[in-house]
Amino acid sequence: MPSSDAPRTQITRIAEKQRHDRELLDQLLDSTRVCHVAVVVDGQPVAFPTAFARDGDTLLIHGSTGSPWMRTVAGGAPISVAVTALDGIVVARSAFESSLHYRSAVLFGSAARVPDEDQVAALDRLTEALIPGRSAEVRPSTRRELVATMVLALPIDRWSLKISDGWPEDEAADVAGDGWAGVVPLHETVGAALPAPDLRDGIPVPRSVRTLSGS
Amino acid sequence: MPSSDAPRTQITRIAEKQRHDRELLDQLLDSTRVCHVAVVVDGQPVAFPTAFARDGDTLLIHGSTGSPWMRTVAGGAPISVAVTALDGIVVARSAFESSLHYRSAVLFGSAARVPDEDQVAALDRLTEALIPGRSAEVRPSTRRELVATMVLALPIDRWSLKISDGWPEDEAADVAGDGWAGVVPLHETVGAALPAPDLRDGIPVPRSVRTLSGS
Repeated sequence: MPSSDAPRTQITRIAEKQRHDRELLDQLLDSTRVCHVAVVVDGQPVAFPTAFARDGDTLLIHGSTGSPWMRTVAGGAPISVAVTALDGIVVARSAFESSLHYRSAVLFGSAARVPDEDQVAALDRLTEALIPGRSAEVRPSTRRELVATMVLALPIDRWSLKISDGWPEDEAADVAGDGWAGVVPLHETVGAALPAPDLRDGIPVPRSVRTLSGS
Repeated sequence: MPSSDAPRTQITRIAEKQRHDRELLDQLLDSTRVCHVAVVVDGQPVAFPTAFARDGDTLLIHGSTGSPWMRTVAGGAPISVAVTALDGIVVARSAFESSLHYRSAVLFGSAARVPDEDQVAALDRLTEALIPGRSAEVRPSTRRELVATMVLALPIDRWSLKISDGWPEDEAADVAGDGWAGVVPLHETVGAALPAPDLRDGIPVPRSVRTLSGS
């Protein structure tokens, strides 16, 4: 996978892979469970994963109020957020042309804490992104839980999107040779739900989990 | 997923999840296809995905010499590299305790270009990380290909590792209630190889690809 290229949102090197469709961006954001945040802490760049959700033109990022990295993000420091999906392995006839099928979004901006009055709705979006349908099945969050959780909002307005979904592009001399070329698809599979050891007898698997597991 | 916590490599918030076993780190690095790099470009943190491989105590990162972000990394700028695997969804009785099973490594340091005399071996490691067994099946890289490819090496010496693999930890009052709790496993599935449209007749699927697809 080539890295993204421009310091901000204009991709220079592999222009044919850059996409400007907001709809394609939203599809990626809505189908991916984890993002990676870059932020500068004490002069040192830090990359870390975290759960997220999209709410219209906002990316919601979830964290604990006990995390120094998240507190730096919450303080309005510039951040970059990468959302990446791997769709396959491109097996070219040469090592050089071998690569990955991917969808890669990089967003830029500064995040702010979601106001108290919007926090319950934002947490529901995050729960729904993880387990669709779950927020209606669980009890409301307690005040203690709300205080311990930080939800940050990043505007979705500065972003780049690259999609690699083509066949290998071998040189003519390699195509004429004996080498194989193709694509090996990668998928995420959701397994059967495993009940917790302390689950009381007679409690059925909820609809959200059945839907997630496809069972 | 809670974000990692300390500015550098000491995790403060969820100490029970932090691991110090280098073997567990290597297992994660050796089984994950893509990392996310954080670097500061023109004063702005950037997060981007790229392919990588481990070679002993070195993380090899792959990029194009045409990428400004990779050139910044190659110049010795401080970087952070996140390597993340998602293993499942933790469905707790409350939204608050619901989370992810994950393995999350964050490395820190500065990368340097691999010397010319080591570049072929380093590229082979990267090819092997993507498609095990492939490097022996393809022709050697040409001089032009070597010049167009940058391989950077980051020492694996400053890192943190967090592993979340437990059951939901609901409060006693929730455990006594009617809510379901458990874990939904996530796996990566490798599909059947798809031949390229320009593949000549009679060229068999190579062993590396058969092994990758499990076919």
